[in-house]
Amino acid sequence: MARFRRPTRDAMNEFELIRQLTADLATGGNVIVGPGDDCAVVDVGQPDHWLLLKTDAVVEGVHFMADAPPEKIGHKALGRALSDIAAMAGEPQFALITLALPESYETGRIQGIYRGMNDLAARHGVGIVGGETTRNPGGLLISIALTGCVRKGKVALRSGAKPGDAIFVSGELGGSIAGHHLEFEPRVKEAACLAEHVDLHAMVDISDGLAGDLRHLMTASGCGCELMARMIPIRRAARLRAREDSHAKPALLAALTDGEDFELLFTVAAAEAVRVKDVWQSHFPETPLSCIGRVTEGAACQIATENGVTDLPKHGYVHFQQP
Amino acid sequence: MARFRRPTRDAMNEFELIRQLTADLATGGNVIVGPGDDCAVVDVGQPDHWLLLKTDAVVEGVHFMADAPPEKIGHKALGRALSDIAAMAGEPQFALITLALPESYETGRIQGIYRGMNDLAARHGVGIVGGETTRNPGGLLISIALTGCVRKGKVALRSGAKPGDAIFVSGELGGSIAGHHLEFEPRVKEAACLAEHVDLHAMVDISDGLAGDLRHLMTASGCGCELMARMIPIRRAARLRAREDSHAKPALLAALTDGEDFELLFTVAAAEAVRVKDVWQSHFPETPLSCIGRVTEGAACQIATENGVTDLPKHGYVHFQQP
Repeated sequence: MARFRRPTRDAMNEFELIRQLTADLATGGNVIVGPGDDCAVVDVGQPDHWLLLKTDAVVEGVHFMADAPPEKIGHKALGRALSDIAAMAGEPQFALITLALPESYETGRIQGIYRGMNDLAARHGVGIVGGETTRNPGGLLISIALTGCVRKGKVALRSGAKPGDAIFVSGELGGSIAGHHLEFEPRVKEAACLAEHVDLHAMVDISDGLAGDLRHLMTASGCGCELMARMIPIRRAARLRAREDSHAKPALLAALTDGEDFELLFTVAAAEAVRVKDVWQSHFPETPLSCIGRVTEGAACQIATENGVTDLPKHGYVHFQQP
Repeated sequence: MARFRRPTRDAMNEFELIRQLTADLATGGNVIVGPGDDCAVVDVGQPDHWLLLKTDAVVEGVHFMADAPPEKIGHKALGRALSDIAAMAGEPQFALITLALPESYETGRIQGIYRGMNDLAARHGVGIVGGETTRNPGGLLISIALTGCVRKGKVALRSGAKPGDAIFVSGELGGSIAGHHLEFEPRVKEAACLAEHVDLHAMVDISDGLAGDLRHLMTASGCGCELMARMIPIRRAARLRAREDSHAKPALLAALTDGEDFELLFTVAAAEAVRVKDVWQSHFPETPLSCIGRVTEGAACQIATENGVTDLPKHGYVHFQQP
C-alpha cells in the first residue's frame, strides 16, 4: 500500500512543501495559531472560547483501498479530523463534507460512507451542516472541514513541551493497516478530560507515526527527547505481522513509524505524571496510557533500547513523496 | 469542456444526490441554516454575529483545464467560495486550503496557484490559516474551506423571496468559459453594501446559471417568477460565441444556463427597487445592475420574450452527471 512507501531522501515531501507554501501567507489579525499545528486557532469574538478549524482529506488508493467497507471509509474520513480537534483539547462542533466522485459510482456506496460519517458525528455531537459533491476523474476523495471550540488558555499546542516533562501516549501503536486505521475512535473525550484535570504542556495526535509526530512536537517546542523502548505500547497486530512476515518491520519500528494510530501524544511536568495516570485510570480504565520517556534539552530525539541509546528513526510516515 | 455537458433526464444529478444524502443528517443545536443554501449558518456564541461555513472544490478537467495559468486556478478556487459568502451578505474571514496533487507535479505550478489565492485573500482580508496536501492519483484538486461572519438578522437566504418582489442581477451573464470563470472578482463588497442599505429578501450567487439558481431560490421561497428577456444582461463573450459559432447556444440561452458567472441574484420589495438602483449606482457606478423580472405566486418560472411567455429552461449547469 502506497501509504507505507519509504521516502527518498532528497525529494520534496509534504512537510517541506507545506512549509514553503505557507511561509508567505498573510494570515491577518485574530489568528492565534496559523499553519503548523493540528488545527488552526482563531478568535471570532466568542466570549470565552477560540474557534478551531481543520480540513482533512482521504483518497481512494492512498488512505483506503477500493474494497474497504463504505461505512468504515466514512468513519475514517471524519475520525481523522475529529482526532485533530482532540489533539487541541477541543470540542468538535460542525462539519462540511466534500465528496469528489469518480465518473461511475454506486449510490449505495456513497450512502454507506455517509452512514459511517453520520454515526460518528452523532456520537460526538457534531452537526453535519453542508458540503458539496463534485467530480474527480481519478477516484473517490472525501474532504472534511471541521470546526470546534476550545476554552481560551486551555488549548493544547505542539509548542509547549519543556525539558524534564514526562511524555505520554494513549492506546497502542503500530500495525494500524490491519484494521485500526478504519475503526479507531478519535480520543475526543479523553483529551477533553485531560485538559480539564491536568496542565497539558503540549499535545499532538499520532497520524504520521510516533517518531515523526514526536519530532514535530519537539521541533515546535525547541526541545529533544529520550524514549524508553520497552515502554512503547505495541499493538498486537504489529507484533503478529513482525512474527509472521519476514519482510515486515520489527514490531518496535512499526510502533514508531507506521502511523495512522490516531492516539494522543502529550507532555506534562514530571511532577504531574502520577496524577495523570490516576485521572486516566479513573476515567478510562479500559484504555492503556503509557509514560514512554521524557523531554530533554537540545534537539536530539533518541530512544533507549537494550542495545543502548540511538537516534529515533528520521521519518515517520510521509503522506506523499515525489518519485 | 465537460462542464457544459447536457444533463440526461433520468440520471441522478448533483442536486438529487445531495438532497438524498442530507435528508437524514442530524445537525444538532445552534444550526441556523443547514445544507441547501450557499453557506451553512451556525451560532457559536458570538455576541452579534453568526458564523458562515463553506467548502468548495475545483478539479482539473472539470472546473479548469490543465493549461490554465496557475495564478488563475488559485484565484478561481478561492473566488468561488468567496462568492458564496457574498451570497449570504457575509464577511469572509479564514480559509483552509486542501491541495490534492497528482503523482507528478511542478512545484512552480503549485506556488503559482498559492500566489493567486493569496492575492485574492489579501484583497478581501481573508487569513489563510492552514490546510493540507495529499495525493490524488487522478489529477489536481483544490478544496477551499472558508469561514465568514454575518450580523444576526442581516443574513441573506434563498428562502425569503415574496410575490411582487423585484429580481435583480449584478454584472453580465453567459459565455463565462471565454475567460470570466478564471478572473471574476467575487461580489463581496457589493453584497455587504446591499445588506447595509437595503432590506434584501433573498439572495444567491449564480454558479449554476441564472435559470438554475433562480429556480433554486424560488423553490426555497415557495414562489415563482417572470423574467423579461430583454432585460437580461448578456456578456459580450456570449454574443460573440453565438454569432461566430453556429453550434454555440443562442446568446440569451447562454446567459440563462452557462453558469460560473458568480454574480449576485437577489430580490427586494418592489417599493425598494428604485432605491436599490440608486444605492448601487452611487457605490458601484462601473458595474451593471439589472432589474430582470418579478417574483410571482405559484411555482412557475417563466420568461417573457418577443415570442410570448415560455417556461425557463429546466436545467442550469449541473456539475456532474452519471452517463
